[in-house]
Amino acid sequence: MLSKSRIKHISSLKIKKYRELYGEFIAEGTKLVTELISSNYESISLYALKEWLSEHKLPNDFRSEIIEVTEAEMSRITSLSSPSPCLLHLKTQNLPFDVSLAERELILMLDDIKDPGNLGTIIRTADWFGFKHIVCSLNTVDLYNPKTIQSTMGSVARVNVSYQELTAILEKAGTKVPVYGSLLDGENILNKELSNNGIIVIGNESIGISEKIRNHINEKIYIPAYQSAESLDKPESLNASIANAIICYEFRRSEMKIM
Amino acid sequence: MLSKSRIKHISSLKIKKYRELYGEFIAEGTKLVTELISSNYESISLYALKEWLSEHKLPNDFRSEIIEVTEAEMSRITSLSSPSPCLLHLKTQNLPFDVSLAERELILMLDDIKDPGNLGTIIRTADWFGFKHIVCSLNTVDLYNPKTIQSTMGSVARVNVSYQELTAILEKAGTKVPVYGSLLDGENILNKELSNNGIIVIGNESIGISEKIRNHINEKIYIPAYQSAESLDKPESLNASIANAIICYEFRRSEMKIM
Repeated sequence: MLSKSRIKHISSLKIKKYRELYGEFIAEGTKLVTELISSNYESISLYALKEWLSEHKLPNDFRSEIIEVTEAEMSRITSLSSPSPCLLHLKTQNLPFDVSLAERELILMLDDIKDPGNLGTIIRTADWFGFKHIVCSLNTVDLYNPKTIQSTMGSVARVNVSYQELTAILEKAGTKVPVYGSLLDGENILNKELSNNGIIVIGNESIGISEKIRNHINEKIYIPAYQSAESLDKPESLNASIANAIICYEFRRSEMKIM
Repeated sequence: MLSKSRIKHISSLKIKKYRELYGEFIAEGTKLVTELISSNYESISLYALKEWLSEHKLPNDFRSEIIEVTEAEMSRITSLSSPSPCLLHLKTQNLPFDVSLAERELILMLDDIKDPGNLGTIIRTADWFGFKHIVCSLNTVDLYNPKTIQSTMGSVARVNVSYQELTAILEKAGTKVPVYGSLLDGENILNKELSNNGIIVIGNESIGISEKIRNHINEKIYIPAYQSAESLDKPESLNASIANAIICYEFRRSEMKIM
């Protein structure tokens, strides 16, 4: 039986303050849990229903505590409205970020993304389109928010996410690295030659790219809206995770054509 | 002062049963409210703070009831966690769907999209890329769910959304209309010639396109994942609203290049 203090500890990890205090987080659902078990993340404990444990073979090198729980116990520790059969309790990572990566590959930079679902979706999309590194502003929503973790659908196990002071990164990157950002006075992304290294900045859901970051953008782009002859009203914008997806896709498009 | 029965009535519209019973819904936020006021939707009442009413000029032909409310009153009728200064109470529409449209233009068909945020985002993206008609399965989440309406960011005022029995639509469309759908055995969308009319099916978040719809797909496509030499683990999928965006973009891409 789960002790009260254990239930309290796991439940506390829904709150950012406690995730930061303990350096721990939780992930739920078979796909996410199995991918995180085999990742670089360090597991502390696995909570699972009896049937789940009998149906799922854990890796031979899995050394963490395994705790069989009942559905009633799971419902007391879950962050989901309908609990999954397994919950993994892990240590968070505080990854460094090496700015010289941008000289060799494409990096996503998130400037104050606020919605946990958007952050999770951006990580999932980045994974699909082969972006291995994301650098987030210090005001970006927490990676370890249960909603973010769940909406990565396991991609958090493969994409490196680091929180940094972005202007410092951009100053270090210098002017030799292309820094792309979607701005109103940008060039149609379809008419632009896109590099296979550099930094791509994705702005906040409401205000877009902040002024202090905007000054560092040396390759202004925009995603055109399709306009038929009849359309008079123009939609205002795309959702941040959608804009990110279109940009990631367009950067990879020419290479994916032959696949 | 708002009467109790009025507060109760507006609040009830957060629940699908009551939206269907009364044929009414609510929308909040300046952008959404002003766009819906100028749309084909019939307004019943506008609730707004004094300052909002003095700062916003309503169209001359706006004939609906205007009710000045206090912040405390707004907090009793809002569906948002932080109330906006205005709330519009409107009649829902039950739009018909003319299948012959698919002979002239591109139609989006949603096969059981379940998440209100995904539906709203799909409508917003459709608007951006010039898709004017969306036909949803009867099990797709309700368009008038406050979360869906809010996440359209006003695009609900410009895109026609109709709920229909999809197999009946597809049977009527017949074999002369191209029916596109993303399937595992599909062809790389980048290598395919894409039509400028037809139906594009977007599947459910968990199970994709259902079997009964799959039989009608005569143009199988898929969105390739970018694979570098090192990548071994493959991400499983894209979020439904992201897949929709990439597909909409790719269908419009050649025409947007010259814009």
